[in-house]
Amino acid sequence: MARVYVFMGSDSDLPVMAGCLEALERFGVEYEVHISSAHRVPEKTAEMAQNAASRGVEVIVAGAGSAAHLAGVIASHTPLPVIAVPFSGSALQGVDALYASVQMPRGVPVATVAIDGAFNAGILAVQILGLKDGQLGEKMAAYKEELSRQVQEKDARLQEVGYKQYLEEKGKNSRK
Amino acid sequence: MARVYVFMGSDSDLPVMAGCLEALERFGVEYEVHISSAHRVPEKTAEMAQNAASRGVEVIVAGAGSAAHLAGVIASHTPLPVIAVPFSGSALQGVDALYASVQMPRGVPVATVAIDGAFNAGILAVQILGLKDGQLGEKMAAYKEELSRQVQEKDARLQEVGYKQYLEEKGKNSRK
Amino acid sequence: MARVYVFMGSDSDLPVMAGCLEALERFGVEYEVHISSAHRVPEKTAEMAQNAASRGVEVIVAGAGSAAHLAGVIASHTPLPVIAVPFSGSALQGVDALYASVQMPRGVPVATVAIDGAFNAGILAVQILGLKDGQLGEKMAAYKEELSRQVQEKDARLQEVGYKQYLEEKGKNSRK
Amino acid sequence: MARVYVFMGSDSDLPVMAGCLEALERFGVEYEVHISSAHRVPEKTAEMAQNAASRGVEVIVAGAGSAAHLAGVIASHTPLPVIAVPFSGSALQGVDALYASVQMPRGVPVATVAIDGAFNAGILAVQILGLKDGQLGEKMAAYKEELSRQVQEKDARLQEVGYKQYLEEKGKNSRK
Amino acid sequence: MARVYVFMGSDSDLPVMAGCLEALERFGVEYEVHISSAHRVPEKTAEMAQNAASRGVEVIVAGAGSAAHLAGVIASHTPLPVIAVPFSGSALQGVDALYASVQMPRGVPVATVAIDGAFNAGILAVQILGLKDGQLGEKMAAYKEELSRQVQEKDARLQEVGYKQYLEEKGKNSRK
Amino acid sequence: MARVYVFMGSDSDLPVMAGCLEALERFGVEYEVHISSAHRVPEKTAEMAQNAASRGVEVIVAGAGSAAHLAGVIASHTPLPVIAVPFSGSALQGVDALYASVQMPRGVPVATVAIDGAFNAGILAVQILGLKDGQLGEKMAAYKEELSRQVQEKDARLQEVGYKQYLEEKGKNSRK
Amino acid sequence: MARVYVFMGSDSDLPVMAGCLEALERFGVEYEVHISSAHRVPEKTAEMAQNAASRGVEVIVAGAGSAAHLAGVIASHTPLPVIAVPFSGSALQGVDALYASVQMPRGVPVATVAIDGAFNAGILAVQILGLKDGQLGEKMAAYKEELSRQVQEKDARLQEVGYKQYLEEKGKNSRK
Amino acid sequence: MARVYVFMGSDSDLPVMAGCLEALERFGVEYEVHISSAHRVPEKTAEMAQNAASRGVEVIVAGAGSAAHLAGVIASHTPLPVIAVPFSGSALQGVDALYASVQMPRGVPVATVAIDGAFNAGILAVQILGLKDGQLGEKMAAYKEELSRQVQEKDARLQEVGYKQYLEEKGKNSRK
Repeated sequence: MARVYVFMGSDSDLPVMAGCLEALERFGVEYEVHISSAHRVPEKTAEMAQNAASRGVEVIVAGAGSAAHLAGVIASHTPLPVIAVPFSGSALQGVDALYASVQMPRGVPVATVAIDGAFNAGILAVQILGLKDGQLGEKMAAYKEELSRQVQEKDARLQEVGYKQYLEEKGKNSRK
Repeated sequence: MARVYVFMGSDSDLPVMAGCLEALERFGVEYEVHISSAHRVPEKTAEMAQNAASRGVEVIVAGAGSAAHLAGVIASHTPLPVIAVPFSGSALQGVDALYASVQMPRGVPVATVAIDGAFNAGILAVQILGLKDGQLGEKMAAYKEELSRQVQEKDARLQEVGYKQYLEEKGKNSRK
Repeated sequence: MARVYVFMGSDSDLPVMAGCLEALERFGVEYEVHISSAHRVPEKTAEMAQNAASRGVEVIVAGAGSAAHLAGVIASHTPLPVIAVPFSGSALQGVDALYASVQMPRGVPVATVAIDGAFNAGILAVQILGLKDGQLGEKMAAYKEELSRQVQEKDARLQEVGYKQYLEEKGKNSRK
Repeated sequence: MARVYVFMGSDSDLPVMAGCLEALERFGVEYEVHISSAHRVPEKTAEMAQNAASRGVEVIVAGAGSAAHLAGVIASHTPLPVIAVPFSGSALQGVDALYASVQMPRGVPVATVAIDGAFNAGILAVQILGLKDGQLGEKMAAYKEELSRQVQEKDARLQEVGYKQYLEEKGKNSRK
Repeated sequence: MARVYVFMGSDSDLPVMAGCLEALERFGVEYEVHISSAHRVPEKTAEMAQNAASRGVEVIVAGAGSAAHLAGVIASHTPLPVIAVPFSGSALQGVDALYASVQMPRGVPVATVAIDGAFNAGILAVQILGLKDGQLGEKMAAYKEELSRQVQEKDARLQEVGYKQYLEEKGKNSRK
Repeated sequence: MARVYVFMGSDSDLPVMAGCLEALERFGVEYEVHISSAHRVPEKTAEMAQNAASRGVEVIVAGAGSAAHLAGVIASHTPLPVIAVPFSGSALQGVDALYASVQMPRGVPVATVAIDGAFNAGILAVQILGLKDGQLGEKMAAYKEELSRQVQEKDARLQEVGYKQYLEEKGKNSRK
Repeated sequence: MARVYVFMGSDSDLPVMAGCLEALERFGVEYEVHISSAHRVPEKTAEMAQNAASRGVEVIVAGAGSAAHLAGVIASHTPLPVIAVPFSGSALQGVDALYASVQMPRGVPVATVAIDGAFNAGILAVQILGLKDGQLGEKMAAYKEELSRQVQEKDARLQEVGYKQYLEEKGKNSRK
Repeated sequence: MARVYVFMGSDSDLPVMAGCLEALERFGVEYEVHISSAHRVPEKTAEMAQNAASRGVEVIVAGAGSAAHLAGVIASHTPLPVIAVPFSGSALQGVDALYASVQMPRGVPVATVAIDGAFNAGILAVQILGLKDGQLGEKMAAYKEELSRQVQEKDARLQEVGYKQYLEEKGKNSRK
């Protein structure tokens, strides 16, 4: 049974939103992902938001670009925490989506992450779920250690080979 | 019977939104005005938008600030033309509301006017209604002539008295 | 006889403005399209705007980039509703055109749509014309249902195949 | 025992941050509030963040203005969900604090709410806590109904007295 | 006979635009000042721009706020140099007027000065007129020397009394 | 003998600045073009600005990107009119150069044109020179007519072939 | 003998720039403060910058608003480190001054601090001077401890009296 | 022994940050370069900052993108001067990193250079070190002369061959 609903307004957002799904899968969190525009299928979107809590969903992630209303519209229909991912794919490069997501009025918050920050939306959902699920909490602690270890390994390699060779190796890797 | 619906998200928007009502009254256009937030009363807002056309409404004006979703949400529920007034009353001084209003996705336009441009939203509504209502069309032509006459009278006064006295007279008037 | 005038300032805008023409054609609305800069052919532009109403035109769409004056200049010469499409093709990526279009002074509104939102300008024109043309109103309702159906079909496919295969299929389609 | 930690960088932020405390008190959620700058008391801030989870804290709210690093710094030291409130009290009116809060790198999200949106940060914390605390969930549902009722009462009054008298009554109230 | 035309869109711009008139008067340059909106009196504005050169006008200064089209519209009707003053009196605080003034298309430049920089528009007009009028050129050189002298006198006073007393003296002066 | 000085801060600006030189050549105006950074060769830049008037130069055009100080620095050393071209080649895409060019303090104006608007800087220089040079004035009038004719020819072609064939023809031309 | 030069473009900047002088005085660092505009007294400004190093000056602080060229112009004339303070007193509220200060070209850096951050410019100057002056280094460490202590005392008071009484006490203090 | 620490948050920043290392190498300044994120390895980052001074480090350069907290976090742990390089690699193209770097609170300055200005960060570090190291001071003077000479050579070539051939030659060179 899905604990997280992941919505996006258009299937053109899926390549970016996939980052959220990867984060959830990494932590073994069950989710449902839907294409469901606030503007093109408003009734269905409202209905899914209204019924989410009773279906066992605990967190909703909604990604949208331009006049990004999706997260706010969903938040208006549910008492669950709603996470917004503003997308950058417009002439205004995501400033529009960021403002339209984060500047919600008193009483109806939306938890906004970085522009195109779909992976972090997944991590935030896991952090929230981790409050009632000890195993997730432990995995999150382990994940943070891994993040730290990765940076330290890169730094160790940089100390070892110097920045010129490091750049060269990276260049090779990025060509693969 | 109301030909125009005027919505705003909060009664704190009413002092600005009154400009729209004044414009409609000036042209004798019947309207209904409602406080109806997209985020706090989403079902009622959706219902009023869905039923507007069948109740004889022809144009909808919606004003909102911050993450201004109201016009877009209404547009998702009606085939009628929807006019958005973005309000400036936030830390971002209306840039947020402007972007959240105007950057609507393909297929669901919103006709956006200037930040705090409530009066112009009323004028635009009258221009649209004027297409089927010859009398309104004539009044609009007369209004445009009056606008022109006012500017020319001011210019004539400026030529007559010079800018220093003009400024002084204006100062006096503004004190009254 | 044209019911809609479509203006743009330069033929370099035509690839984007074509979206407006496609929208109008889709609904069977007759239009005339003109290249007519506010700055390079000001007299002709003014004249066409002044005569539009008497030639049976009901809505004017004007697209321009940078210091986008075209819609405002046209609006100063006609009582008809004028729709502005701000273009993004400048160093400021359309913020300049958006502000220059939407921030019109009291008494002379311009109905602004999204940056590069030419298709939506066409839809908005059809919504306005639909007020006096029942057939257009019905087509608009049908169009909104089609928009909704498309999103729901995509969502159904996503549920069926999962996001990884969906992305793969989309990749294949976009290569075609 | 505190379930929520509320941090702010300076006591000049307290008048705004009080909104968060009011929200938490309204729902009967226990909290601790601290003045603790990321830049002036970095060790103590880090220590409190590191120990929060083991002391039973479940959500951390951090408000900061200008180069608002506080929420991000705290998030780097805890696996708990961290909510950021960007403050507007700088020459850039909160755009700086918004960007510095929301644009967090991969792996370390911060849940950002509106500029000066301290009350909403409290509501979001309650929504998160409500996932494991049925009573809070019920209170949240009741709160959303109250929000809706308030808007509808205002609309009813507006219908009753018209916008001119409504504005007058509001003026009187705001003078009291 | 006027050598400079000074236009503004509204008499509410006159307090700022007076700075331009003061600069012209200081150099003894004859001018005509007009209130003449691009949007409310387009024909008259066009006509005055078209006839300016034949009436002996050599430079045109045009100030406007919001969607500031006035300078651009005038430039489209005359081969004379046109100077734009963008005004700050809108929610966007002059960014809109600046972009709408300066971002003119190829072939139709407008010489833009600072937001609310009406005085500098006058100085620029004098610099241009100075090219054919030796006396103006000399006055401009003298003016630049005076600017320099003023700064040096202030610096000398600062060295004499120190910054604390300087601030106090300034405070006294500003109260007079 | 050069009547116009054209400066740019770096030879990487030359491809854009060439537009100014083309405009000047088109009108047969003699110019000198220099690479002369305000920051890297400040003395030489100051000296050339100081001596420009006595060498017969009448207008100075200065193009710079990023913290674009060149035009302002030159204006501080000469009573001649100075035209600024802000370049877009930075992370901020020219907003930085625009603000650094146009926002000059009281007494020292710079005539700013569009971002990357080097061609228009040349046209503006010609308009200024045209005030004392009747032949240039006539050429400018002829140029404006040609601009108008070009737009009208394009519009005529568009009327003749329709927008689809027009786009196709343009595509072919742009490939040549 | 002055170790720090403090420049500002206008005496209207002195109330803000005084913060820098207070910081320097607090650490007992000798300084000279000058009003010296890059645009109004360019030669004197250049000369003071050129001679600063030989007069024993080690750090230069320059504050300016709008098109803030002062720090960059000084940096072009000296090999000493130059610190810029962008001022907010313009329609663009310091974004113009920030960009004009910080976006310096390759080879000529300017160390920019926050908008109106004059006090911090003084602290940064002291940090730089502290590298060769052990006593200043110790004072800086003590200053950082004091910063930390102040925050902790405020937090202790907040824990003691609660946020409501704290706000009340602060209100009383701010009235004194 | 390293006199400069160079930090960056991620190895993806190394290609840009290499500019800083090249500047330091050019002046023969010893440095250590580290990948050390404020958010992923906060303890190690704090520790290195705390110990920098006692290990003989005199200046710290920190580069980061997006919510760029690295320089500020380091500055909170050391009395040494800290230079920030904001990176452009985000949807907001470095405006986020610039604001998050430069807008530091009272008492904890960060010396910010241009977006992606890593080379200039190195030059600024050398200028600071040059205050106690006469040899570096001389090299810096020589470097400034070389900058000047390069520009003058380019200008001389431009005078010799004209802009058309210059552009052609540059094109050839850029292909090599």
